[in-house]
Amino acid sequence: MNRPLNLAIAGLGTVGAGVVRLLRSNGKLIALRGGRAFTIAAVAARDPGKARGLDLSGVRWCDDAVAMAADPTVDVVVELIGGSDGIARQIVETALTHGKHVVTANKALMAQHGSALALLAETNDKVLAFEAAVAGGIPAIKTLREGLAANQIARLYGILNGTCNYILTQMSEPGRETGREFGDVLAEAQALGYAEADPSFDVDGVDAAHKLAILTSLAFGSAVDFAGIHVEGIRHVSALDIDFAAELGYRIKLLGIARLTERGVEQRVHPCMVPLATPIAAVDGVFNAVVAECDFAGRIVLQGRGAGAEPTASAVVADLIDIAAGRRTPTFGVPAASLARRPASPMLHHRGAYYIRLMVLDRPGVIADIAAALRDEQVSMEAMIQRGRSPGEAVPIVLTTHVTEEAAMRRALDRIALLDTVTEPPRMIRIEDL
Amino acid sequence: MNRPLNLAIAGLGTVGAGVVRLLRSNGKLIALRGGRAFTIAAVAARDPGKARGLDLSGVRWCDDAVAMAADPTVDVVVELIGGSDGIARQIVETALTHGKHVVTANKALMAQHGSALALLAETNDKVLAFEAAVAGGIPAIKTLREGLAANQIARLYGILNGTCNYILTQMSEPGRETGREFGDVLAEAQALGYAEADPSFDVDGVDAAHKLAILTSLAFGSAVDFAGIHVEGIRHVSALDIDFAAELGYRIKLLGIARLTERGVEQRVHPCMVPLATPIAAVDGVFNAVVAECDFAGRIVLQGRGAGAEPTASAVVADLIDIAAGRRTPTFGVPAASLARRPASPMLHHRGAYYIRLMVLDRPGVIADIAAALRDEQVSMEAMIQRGRSPGEAVPIVLTTHVTEEAAMRRALDRIALLDTVTEPPRMIRIEDL
Repeated sequence: MNRPLNLAIAGLGTVGAGVVRLLRSNGKLIALRGGRAFTIAAVAARDPGKARGLDLSGVRWCDDAVAMAADPTVDVVVELIGGSDGIARQIVETALTHGKHVVTANKALMAQHGSALALLAETNDKVLAFEAAVAGGIPAIKTLREGLAANQIARLYGILNGTCNYILTQMSEPGRETGREFGDVLAEAQALGYAEADPSFDVDGVDAAHKLAILTSLAFGSAVDFAGIHVEGIRHVSALDIDFAAELGYRIKLLGIARLTERGVEQRVHPCMVPLATPIAAVDGVFNAVVAECDFAGRIVLQGRGAGAEPTASAVVADLIDIAAGRRTPTFGVPAASLARRPASPMLHHRGAYYIRLMVLDRPGVIADIAAALRDEQVSMEAMIQRGRSPGEAVPIVLTTHVTEEAAMRRALDRIALLDTVTEPPRMIRIEDL
Repeated sequence: MNRPLNLAIAGLGTVGAGVVRLLRSNGKLIALRGGRAFTIAAVAARDPGKARGLDLSGVRWCDDAVAMAADPTVDVVVELIGGSDGIARQIVETALTHGKHVVTANKALMAQHGSALALLAETNDKVLAFEAAVAGGIPAIKTLREGLAANQIARLYGILNGTCNYILTQMSEPGRETGREFGDVLAEAQALGYAEADPSFDVDGVDAAHKLAILTSLAFGSAVDFAGIHVEGIRHVSALDIDFAAELGYRIKLLGIARLTERGVEQRVHPCMVPLATPIAAVDGVFNAVVAECDFAGRIVLQGRGAGAEPTASAVVADLIDIAAGRRTPTFGVPAASLARRPASPMLHHRGAYYIRLMVLDRPGVIADIAAALRDEQVSMEAMIQRGRSPGEAVPIVLTTHVTEEAAMRRALDRIALLDTVTEPPRMIRIEDL
């Protein structure tokens, strides 16, 4: 067996502590699989005095994580600090330019600077691995980059944020008589530690978009394009929408979706109406899922825990084992210079079906006005539900459309919003044909 | 870019033709991912004159596939003939001993001779890859061997045979008033080409057992032990069982299941009662699924097409890309000499819950006799259903048990079978706690 690889770990938060525990707990197996052992040579973390319940005897503590990344005795730097810029980026760049392999769980960094870092890794002939950046314990990166490498992928989508999926699942918990509202469930999720005190990164779709940017690059061989993603979160999803979705045969999920169109790459993160019969509709709670539609392999679905110390550690150490065994794959599956620079397919050109919920005054002629607005924008209605009657009061009306262009849909919604009888801004959720 | 790799393909049936089509159709992508192109240098197949719709210009036809496997100009031999012995085994052994990498889709060969072939590959410092042997287009091998490499796996299970899953799905097709019987659905599946003229390999569980043997080895780092698998097929599953399963909140699936017990490795293939809420219950038709329960990654579920020319070709070419890119992994994830020789955990010591269906004469005292037989063997009943009344005629009775030992269950069934009022052999289906 070869000499042990020396690791330097930057960041000992939840994930960092999980990596240390995994290396300790399954060390023998890991060494067998990697053909060599790992030594945790150095760590850099805030507050060395903090009790973490970890055996770190013999490990060097570094105050300066960037200096640690340049240390000539280190073989692999594991970056678990996070953030798209600042210290995390410095650590990764320093490690690569100093001839060290890098393993990172940093989705923001890879989403924002992935293409440039891939080139830097390649120039330095080093591995930049990031299985832990997407979908926690699910080997989604390896599956797209290697397992499905022979395929053209037409579309890729997934449930990429466990917090949103937990909230949406709780809002629609079967067995309850009425759905619960977003705000209530979010507060509960925060109390339980499933959502951050500042939840915007999760519930506004940014985290899912980071992950989607990475998956898109792997699936299509495109340069990472985070800025090209259309992002909407789940704050506007109401208990009413969840009830109507069930009535129409759908569930509401926050999906990240990427596909190639004749205009370029369409990337979008937003709440979706997902048909009940599709596998992803059943992925509940904090679970994540990634689906790739391949020309030869067909539809491949991966499910598992999308976050947490242990699943994420599993992904980090899988990358370390690949490095130990000498297995090399270009960062995004193809040489960095080959990554295609495809334009972002504009959202206004998106074509799909739509669910529209309106609050309208229950009086004669309302439907006719709405129907006229749709007709004037060439949007073809598929179904309409008005539940309950309450003359003179506001009642919900739900419409679904046939496939239409987003631009036309938005123009129709603008018209509808101006109607006197429409009392709240219209809510729109895209219906996905999965 | 490096020089192209020369491939020799043995077998141009459905899968072989699919591999040629995939290499032609996505050749540019495949070369980019592998860092070099592939040349189909030679093929060996019965009936060179047969129209296959393939462009094989410039490809050498060989009459002798074993001689082809020894050809010094060949880099990789792709074995797509099948069968655990005979020519397929000769081709693989010849190729490895002559210093060529091997890619095979041959589950029977890997299940019967996997450990010996792994050693042979290692001795010759060559790759023996077999992603296509299990679960078609799903990268199950790579996921277990690399993606989840850091984990101890406690249990692994899957829907590994598309023909059985198709038949069981058709038998329970929702929307039908009554289920359809096995024989009818099998005949239909044969007419549609989903089942072979001689279906025993599929419906008797042998094919699923081959795949399970391979997955078990990867999951637990054990030597392949096909002979240690307890195998039952689906011929005895009746429409009645499917109806009762639905009533009890289960679906019936043919699963392959492996777990480590204190006695060794328990491997079994048989029809199972699977709780409706578990992801695998929703995997229908010809789809396959593989589930790994990992100590760090948690439960990982993979789904996709388990057979067919195109998914299988996707797996074969993924292996070729790994070889082209120089990525090496020991055949079963660990050095062949490290594969543990664990005993097979005897099925009589299996512990689980059971579903029992009896046909009994509807007369007083029947239940008391059955209950006494269970009591005498210390089997604890959980529930009993008798549907319909028909005094003096045979009616079905269904029992479910609490967790019990298989040996006790079988003794109780032997007693029950001897009762005068029991008119048919008792049917037993294991209930899985998934």
